[in-house]
Amino acid sequence: MNIGLDMMGGDFAPLQAVKGAAEFLIDAPADIRLTLIGDETLIKEHLINYPIDTNKYEIVHTSEVIEMNEHPTKALKEKQKSSIAIGFQLLAIDKIDAFISAGNTGAMMVGALFSIKAIEGVLRPGIGAYIPREDGTLGLLVDVGLNADSKPENLNQFAVLGALFSKHILNFKNPKVGLLNLGEEEGKGNMLSKATYTLLKENKQINFIGNLEGRDILLNKADVLVCDGFTGNIVLKLAESIYDISKRRNLDDAYFNRLNFEQYGGVPVLGVSKPVIIGHGISHAMAFKNMIRITHRMIETDLLKKMKDSFIS
Amino acid sequence: MNIGLDMMGGDFAPLQAVKGAAEFLIDAPADIRLTLIGDETLIKEHLINYPIDTNKYEIVHTSEVIEMNEHPTKALKEKQKSSIAIGFQLLAIDKIDAFISAGNTGAMMVGALFSIKAIEGVLRPGIGAYIPREDGTLGLLVDVGLNADSKPENLNQFAVLGALFSKHILNFKNPKVGLLNLGEEEGKGNMLSKATYTLLKENKQINFIGNLEGRDILLNKADVLVCDGFTGNIVLKLAESIYDISKRRNLDDAYFNRLNFEQYGGVPVLGVSKPVIIGHGISHAMAFKNMIRITHRMIETDLLKKMKDSFIS
Repeated sequence: MNIGLDMMGGDFAPLQAVKGAAEFLIDAPADIRLTLIGDETLIKEHLINYPIDTNKYEIVHTSEVIEMNEHPTKALKEKQKSSIAIGFQLLAIDKIDAFISAGNTGAMMVGALFSIKAIEGVLRPGIGAYIPREDGTLGLLVDVGLNADSKPENLNQFAVLGALFSKHILNFKNPKVGLLNLGEEEGKGNMLSKATYTLLKENKQINFIGNLEGRDILLNKADVLVCDGFTGNIVLKLAESIYDISKRRNLDDAYFNRLNFEQYGGVPVLGVSKPVIIGHGISHAMAFKNMIRITHRMIETDLLKKMKDSFIS
Repeated sequence: MNIGLDMMGGDFAPLQAVKGAAEFLIDAPADIRLTLIGDETLIKEHLINYPIDTNKYEIVHTSEVIEMNEHPTKALKEKQKSSIAIGFQLLAIDKIDAFISAGNTGAMMVGALFSIKAIEGVLRPGIGAYIPREDGTLGLLVDVGLNADSKPENLNQFAVLGALFSKHILNFKNPKVGLLNLGEEEGKGNMLSKATYTLLKENKQINFIGNLEGRDILLNKADVLVCDGFTGNIVLKLAESIYDISKRRNLDDAYFNRLNFEQYGGVPVLGVSKPVIIGHGISHAMAFKNMIRITHRMIETDLLKKMKDSFIS
């Protein structure tokens, strides 16, 4: 398998991307090759410090970079030779089996939505984020921002996609699926959550446990929590800010340290036909390494095939 | 002025309600009387422990209690002699000038919406919650759950109501108003937040500073943050859960301790024609005392008049 990695994405690229790739490759399974996409000179300059078998990777040179603050659609269109644009081109023609970037999040979303196909039957892909829970496990929150406006059918599909990811990547045998809502009882909620409840309740593909409230997000109640991308985005960023505050206050607590989302690598785009992982802007080597590992596991478990099968009617 | 207090509401009623009322009355301004609404025998039994001038309060006996888990509309209809129902009846006929309860939140919301009038011109009242910010100040988040589905016009009115509350009760001279959104730039968001942005930008009654993200909620960026009641409810409960986790982990940090929302008393229903404060179920004496203080300040500053004036077209 061949995993494509954007070497120019993230605040500490290409240094940390190279470091992460190298650390992964040093003890990587024999069946994995990495395609390092970015400025060849810069990549080689850093890579020389690591004793990596040159058969384990290839470099695809790109001459442009989409900066973090550029307008996603515009940048992707104008910078066809950027590492993100080339990454999606390689993915679209099967030169790579997966694509990872810690670059411009919006450009990664646009690329995922328009450069490669959605899984047949999936109306809208969503982004799943890890939620570090108080008991030490990881939950999954879908969607955290790909769909600012969502429909009940979207959330119902996020539930199926999220449950498969939770089962095969996070190792929950029969993941509990919850609906993020403003009250626990059936019948509570806004129009979206009420209609979604009905769909989730009838969905035989998932283990639906009902509504969960904001106070339940960080607890071990649902392994997969679905919501619209607007709400999920705000929840995720609020949780991220808790970690920042805890650091500024010099707290060193095992749980609050786990709210450092960088350590989980990136977030998967769920519902597209190939593995796409979007990394955090502030990714360091560990994050890159973890993103490659998760992507490897997504390929190894044939997760995409399982997702496709679940949408065959 | 006469402030009505539900003595039967909250997990520790009437003991803590009596204690809070008594502690407030001991050094209360001469112009305040409290109307203690609840089981007269129980109230007197506890009140006897405090040296309170009997001219400073009166007891209105009620024989029923709406329990925390009862269905709000049904309970209010069937338990006409409950402390919450009687409280709203007294408020409606001006026997009391304000009503406070830490009882069934849903019943308080229903009562506020249907027993007393909305301010003329206000389409939908909203609930404002204090947000303890990292810098030690209190922000205000509106709405935190009264309107699961909100329209742009609602959020625009929450901004005006919240700004007046922030100015007169929280003492911000020219409160900065922000829109909770999934991105900072104008044009980002879901349909609701995009349309709301346009209204807020044109609104001359407020000091609008633009979109804020989830990571900004606990920072000193906007003094008033508006959002739909669904999102606000989830944000508030997530923040509350952070305090619970910090306590379970035996953290004792000044900021995380401030995420104990009980200490702020209750949340005001903004947009109704009289002061209504909804307390937290787990309210202790301090919370009751603080709720009475805030209510006192709302009356003293003639906040409701200012709100009414701002909706005269």
